[in-house]
Amino acid sequence: MAETYWDANHLEEVVSQRAKILGPTVWAAAAPDPRPVISFAGGLPDIPSLPGEILVKAARWVVDNDAKEALEYNGTFGPRPLRQALAERSSRLEGIPVSMDQVMVVSGSAHGIGIMAETLLDPGDTVLVESPNFPGSMRTIRSFGAEQVAVPMDDLGLRVDRLEEELQKLADAGKRAKFIYCIPTHQNPAGCTLPLDRRERMVELARQYNTLILEDDAYGELWFDNPPPPSLFALSGGDHAVKISSFSKVLATGLRLGWTMGPSALVSRMAAVRFDMGSSSFLGRVVGQAIRSGDMDRHIENLRGIYKRKLDRMEDGLRRYCAPYCTWHRPEGGFFLWLELPAGIPSRDVQAAANEKGVIIGQGAQFFADGRATNHVRLAFSYVPMEEIEEGCHRLGEAMAEVAARAASK
Amino acid sequence: MAETYWDANHLEEVVSQRAKILGPTVWAAAAPDPRPVISFAGGLPDIPSLPGEILVKAARWVVDNDAKEALEYNGTFGPRPLRQALAERSSRLEGIPVSMDQVMVVSGSAHGIGIMAETLLDPGDTVLVESPNFPGSMRTIRSFGAEQVAVPMDDLGLRVDRLEEELQKLADAGKRAKFIYCIPTHQNPAGCTLPLDRRERMVELARQYNTLILEDDAYGELWFDNPPPPSLFALSGGDHAVKISSFSKVLATGLRLGWTMGPSALVSRMAAVRFDMGSSSFLGRVVGQAIRSGDMDRHIENLRGIYKRKLDRMEDGLRRYCAPYCTWHRPEGGFFLWLELPAGIPSRDVQAAANEKGVIIGQGAQFFADGRATNHVRLAFSYVPMEEIEEGCHRLGEAMAEVAARAASK
Repeated sequence: MAETYWDANHLEEVVSQRAKILGPTVWAAAAPDPRPVISFAGGLPDIPSLPGEILVKAARWVVDNDAKEALEYNGTFGPRPLRQALAERSSRLEGIPVSMDQVMVVSGSAHGIGIMAETLLDPGDTVLVESPNFPGSMRTIRSFGAEQVAVPMDDLGLRVDRLEEELQKLADAGKRAKFIYCIPTHQNPAGCTLPLDRRERMVELARQYNTLILEDDAYGELWFDNPPPPSLFALSGGDHAVKISSFSKVLATGLRLGWTMGPSALVSRMAAVRFDMGSSSFLGRVVGQAIRSGDMDRHIENLRGIYKRKLDRMEDGLRRYCAPYCTWHRPEGGFFLWLELPAGIPSRDVQAAANEKGVIIGQGAQFFADGRATNHVRLAFSYVPMEEIEEGCHRLGEAMAEVAARAASK
Repeated sequence: MAETYWDANHLEEVVSQRAKILGPTVWAAAAPDPRPVISFAGGLPDIPSLPGEILVKAARWVVDNDAKEALEYNGTFGPRPLRQALAERSSRLEGIPVSMDQVMVVSGSAHGIGIMAETLLDPGDTVLVESPNFPGSMRTIRSFGAEQVAVPMDDLGLRVDRLEEELQKLADAGKRAKFIYCIPTHQNPAGCTLPLDRRERMVELARQYNTLILEDDAYGELWFDNPPPPSLFALSGGDHAVKISSFSKVLATGLRLGWTMGPSALVSRMAAVRFDMGSSSFLGRVVGQAIRSGDMDRHIENLRGIYKRKLDRMEDGLRRYCAPYCTWHRPEGGFFLWLELPAGIPSRDVQAAANEKGVIIGQGAQFFADGRATNHVRLAFSYVPMEEIEEGCHRLGEAMAEVAARAASK
């Protein structure tokens, strides 16, 4: 290929500011590791329960009953039957009335978070980000030139006292946070679920400082014993929070389908910045049918049992093999266990040692909005086959023991 | 709902520059008109031939044979089986070798054009836009703050002499076009197909002025008697053009699936700006299977006959009822007829008069990058049922006669 402006050597000269911020590296997303490893890494659903049959059955129904609409443009808000199903289901689950004009279908929650960022962020804007957090969202927010201020968490979740401090600091400087990004329920990576009193305080603070909460709820429906407290969206009466939800964890990440709920004026503004002519009408109507038939709710009920059983197995393994080297709090749902290590056992070294033994885990600065990592590792118990959990914990324990022994001999 | 920053009254104060450029109106896309009208308006596929059964059959295959991968993240470039199928098929159809790393799957061609704009455009950049053109793409380009310079067309397509003038004008000012946006084959709205010599000249000019062509090929495969000349992408050897293609017109607009081909370094850069974690693995693998099974190619072959027959019926109707009031060139493929009206019969008045008779057609400044409309109307012959074409033409002829009579009586 001839030497041109469009080859790798010259491309950086012509790309946009946003592309420059992101750099040329393609973000790996949460693709499964192709090597034969025991994976505690990606936030991916359980493989044997992937709902292929539910989708084919719903697709058959849609083509038999609704083919024309399903195969045509459905507009930027998304297919009406899916929005209707989501508004009805959300009214029931959230405990506040949710109307169809508060609901927009998006191509996965990462897409929805990106649309929110596109709609609200200019370079120099400030976003408060619960820290640690999901790296993909922080990458998106950063790409729009916004400054991210890390607000730390404790074992219960976001520290609302620190949130207030940061909001006040901004107010003192004559600024305002464009939004507060958080994952209050079965947090990624920390696993914790924010208690009701802190949720209420967050909504008060959002009102008081006239800002908005972006509530990422990818894992909220996957509770094990009891449903979580009401969402920030519900507690705000739908007017100081946008809740972004996903079918990725309750159906399949490969759908790339999710939805947003928020104040209708803002949702409409988000629809107006889209250039993609809407998410898939076909997929949207297929999922809408899976909701109406009850198949999705039955599937979610089934998943709750599977993930609880996987977590139990994981905790058994950790107690057996890793207990001397780490502590953790049992999550009430979701995909993740967040292990705290003592100072002498650096999480980076544990990750490397585990990797050598064919066990992959998550750790590091990528989870932290300010890049200052704590000494934790993230274990996903969702994806690994049930049969491999104990062996994975055994190897992880050996990796921790090696790192601890090396540290002791120094 | 309480008065907040996030309601309709205050929202404009906090939205991004890009959202401000776009304004609060949600773009209607090409949604079918819900009224009982005869529609010559939207660029939508024929309804009876929508490929529901092909999709369900392919979905069944994917769930039986490839469920795990289809239901997991497949990364930002898109599902490998679809990229592989597209690279092989494109190598055959384009006549140049196309490798998988030149192919990225996108959520419809509008999405692909948006990603290209995100990757390359900053406020103040210049894009040369063939005019008239598809309003959705011009809206997207405008939203990134780029200046669009209209390059006019004649009956054969883009005037390459005028393109050269504009490129030289920019060069004289020390500037460069970030890209040249065009639809060389079965153009929307003008219907024409750019001849080979002009294509070759465009590629020469792109090389000479070191810019890039963005070739929108939504309609390219829907030729009637003979395939069009080689694509600009092929003529450039794949290094001065990005070709964006869509499954919308050859399968269904409701899929929201398409693909881009271009220099691998640029395609990779486009993948790196995405925040959506890729297009649907499930849909992508379903369409990949429809390609591999031969179903898509058989479907396209069938569509060619259907659209040719619709065009024949439309031209019969126009000759019978509208010939005194307009002229046109028969397109060699695609969805559109572009009627030129004499100065005494303004296209706006014809549109209004036809609308009163229950016939909807396209016209106006929305198709023109500089907003200066010519006196044309666009008729889509693709979507209207075969049975309604003659009646539609009859009413359109009556509308034209009324407008002409009003003009004569002035």
